Amino acid sequence: MTLMESWIDSANDPQTPFPLNNLPHGVFSTGEGGDRRLGVAIGDQVIDMTGLDLPGLVPANQDWTAFMAAGPAVWSAFRAALTEALRAGAAGPLRAVIAAALVPMREVRLHMPFRVSEFTDFYSGRHHAENVGRIFRPDGDPLSPNWLSMPIGYNGRASSVVVSGTPVVRPLGQLPTGDLPVFGASKRFDFELEFGAVIGQPSQGMVTLDRAEEMIFGYVLLNDWSARDIQRWEAQPLGPFQAKATATTISPWIVPRAALEPFRCAPPLRDRPLLPYLETAGDSAYDISLEVGLAPAGQAETIICRSNTRYLYFNAAQQLVHHSSSGCPMRVGDLLGSGTISGPGADQRGAMLELSWGGQTPVTLDTGEVRSFLEDGDRITLRGRAQGDGYVIGFGDCAGQVQPAPAVPGTVAAG
Amino acid sequence: MTLMESWIDSANDPQTPFPLNNLPHGVFSTGEGGDRRLGVAIGDQVIDMTGLDLPGLVPANQDWTAFMAAGPAVWSAFRAALTEALRAGAAGPLRAVIAAALVPMREVRLHMPFRVSEFTDFYSGRHHAENVGRIFRPDGDPLSPNWLSMPIGYNGRASSVVVSGTPVVRPLGQLPTGDLPVFGASKRFDFELEFGAVIGQPSQGMVTLDRAEEMIFGYVLLNDWSARDIQRWEAQPLGPFQAKATATTISPWIVPRAALEPFRCAPPLRDRPLLPYLETAGDSAYDISLEVGLAPAGQAETIICRSNTRYLYFNAAQQLVHHSSSGCPMRVGDLLGSGTISGPGADQRGAMLELSWGGQTPVTLDTGEVRSFLEDGDRITLRGRAQGDGYVIGFGDCAGQVQPAPAVPGTVAAG
Repeated sequence: MTLMESWIDSANDPQTPFPLNNLPHGVFSTGEGGDRRLGVAIGDQVIDMTGLDLPGLVPANQDWTAFMAAGPAVWSAFRAALTEALRAGAAGPLRAVIAAALVPMREVRLHMPFRVSEFTDFYSGRHHAENVGRIFRPDGDPLSPNWLSMPIGYNGRASSVVVSGTPVVRPLGQLPTGDLPVFGASKRFDFELEFGAVIGQPSQGMVTLDRAEEMIFGYVLLNDWSARDIQRWEAQPLGPFQAKATATTISPWIVPRAALEPFRCAPPLRDRPLLPYLETAGDSAYDISLEVGLAPAGQAETIICRSNTRYLYFNAAQQLVHHSSSGCPMRVGDLLGSGTISGPGADQRGAMLELSWGGQTPVTLDTGEVRSFLEDGDRITLRGRAQGDGYVIGFGDCAGQVQPAPAVPGTVAAG
Repeated sequence: MTLMESWIDSANDPQTPFPLNNLPHGVFSTGEGGDRRLGVAIGDQVIDMTGLDLPGLVPANQDWTAFMAAGPAVWSAFRAALTEALRAGAAGPLRAVIAAALVPMREVRLHMPFRVSEFTDFYSGRHHAENVGRIFRPDGDPLSPNWLSMPIGYNGRASSVVVSGTPVVRPLGQLPTGDLPVFGASKRFDFELEFGAVIGQPSQGMVTLDRAEEMIFGYVLLNDWSARDIQRWEAQPLGPFQAKATATTISPWIVPRAALEPFRCAPPLRDRPLLPYLETAGDSAYDISLEVGLAPAGQAETIICRSNTRYLYFNAAQQLVHHSSSGCPMRVGDLLGSGTISGPGADQRGAMLELSWGGQTPVTLDTGEVRSFLEDGDRITLRGRAQGDGYVIGFGDCAGQVQPAPAVPGTVAAG
């Protein structure tokens, strides 16, 4: 697909992440303590949706949750109407209304674009799963026996999901030291490069792959901050818990599924056939370039990882079908993390754990500093771009800066 | 503490689960499709709270979530005012209002008493953890090395929490058979006897044990339905997922924390000292008798387990402190499951997995039938009672009947 031209000039820049082909959904405010309003990004502008008469919009909405609940037919009608009003040469009353509703992107503050119902984090990046297996179980099979048969995942903590730009406080926790643990600040705090699917429709009972696709409203970038020392000590036998509960950062714009459809590509080769309920035909993956930047406090950024969503062995529809297979009800606002997306190369690893190989081979930044895990003040930024013919689909930065750990609070005994 | 006498005669029966000392919070309707209303149980009656002028009550509320958010001072004021109006010899205008607001318990249908924000399931029953360890890892240490140091837990699925009486459909899932899995109905469907804490206050950052106690609004019984075959195949390396996502049943009445305070008792002996942030003094456990009944379809019930909350190694306040330790925000309506509560005896095991020792020693019911795991039509009922001086604190039954698995839905490929 080629660039769709708009009467908003900045949307026609072949490098803008927000051409007319994108139209992602966000929530913004202006000034200190301003109201939260629905916005759609276009070029270097945000359209304030407050006064617009478009399918699915209700003036009282403070985020896109209710709009998502309206369903795929409304999402399409909204997108078609907005596209028509924004295209080059558009006529009609909506164009004038939009022209008056534009707010420069540089003047807005972005907030959570939807209310996270529950957050599930999968583990569908094969290179990541294999690397982690090799680091933690050097003598075993890098993949657990079930990995090629199902999208392995665990339930995360919805309350900890924050929008890009929110500071991330280094966690406290039990750290393994010798025979017995100590309680203190994590020394192995890490990021994870992931892709997140935003579920826009509910389900009751198991769904099919076709239905699962329809339930996906859009996608975000997702950083599942992880404390590797806490994780190592706590994770047996019930999996990660507090190691993953500090924060999960998402990019501020939900990119509609429709905007990513032109970037479908073949999934990785399957080592063995999938069970029928998970079997896809054709191009079920996405070709979206990803990168991770690490900037120490007040210093320049180094790109420490370049990867691509095409490395995911299972896509979000497969994850969603599996998620529903037990009869688990899915709800509007559920967020599914893809799992860390590493590529086959040493510079394609989507977490410090892998980049430094468990701390054994620290990464040297462009500034000359070295990192095994994250230091206080480090800012991690995830970026994604799908390259079209003369245009780009972007997500906006998914960024967070590590703040020092808090003091251990007083522990007066209760009885 | 002794029975507090009420002018409602049925509340003075020494065997009623709902004496004046209890006053649990529920949501009820009458007739087909009637409105949901807030109720408090007293004897064989439910007080319809709709028209009552009491601290924290707002007429529009359809469950107790907003009341919980009002905080512990309001909870106490509400309880004090209601107790005063219900006590034998009470005068004042509220008594007459209540007398007109009584609905016989046998005429009500009970609903979810609060909106579950997130559901976390812990694993703090030591006998259960040891039994499971012995069944699954007969050659290893029954407890993982971390177990005595922290309340091990995992995030469950809030969308799957249902109120007592809701049918529970046997799940589909991947079942291990030979080298590769098949997809079908679980053959090892199980219950778990647990105690649930309802969190009534939010937190940001790590909380102390004293604050955690204040955040707990009350307690319910909780059955964490579990598919052992699905669990066994999926649970490495990230823990249980779909095996625990079908349903979790809670009892319909939230018993206020204040009603259980007289039943505090000593916790189990600690094998090693806890880290200071988890250390409690005095009687931090509860002495509440528990039992599990299994009734095949249309047949009499057999009591298959008798246990007690006193066997829990960590209490809900300790679980909550640990949950918050990473900075994880807690929210009003969070639900914490205790973990399965087994006692030391063979008839004190709180799951079929333990009772039948992984299927090796099936349980014989009073009807003569045998069970290794649950059959379609089986009804599991959890009951709890705290025995006071001339009175009982009860929770109401926590019951669910197993329905046959659905057909595997069509699996048209998407791509």
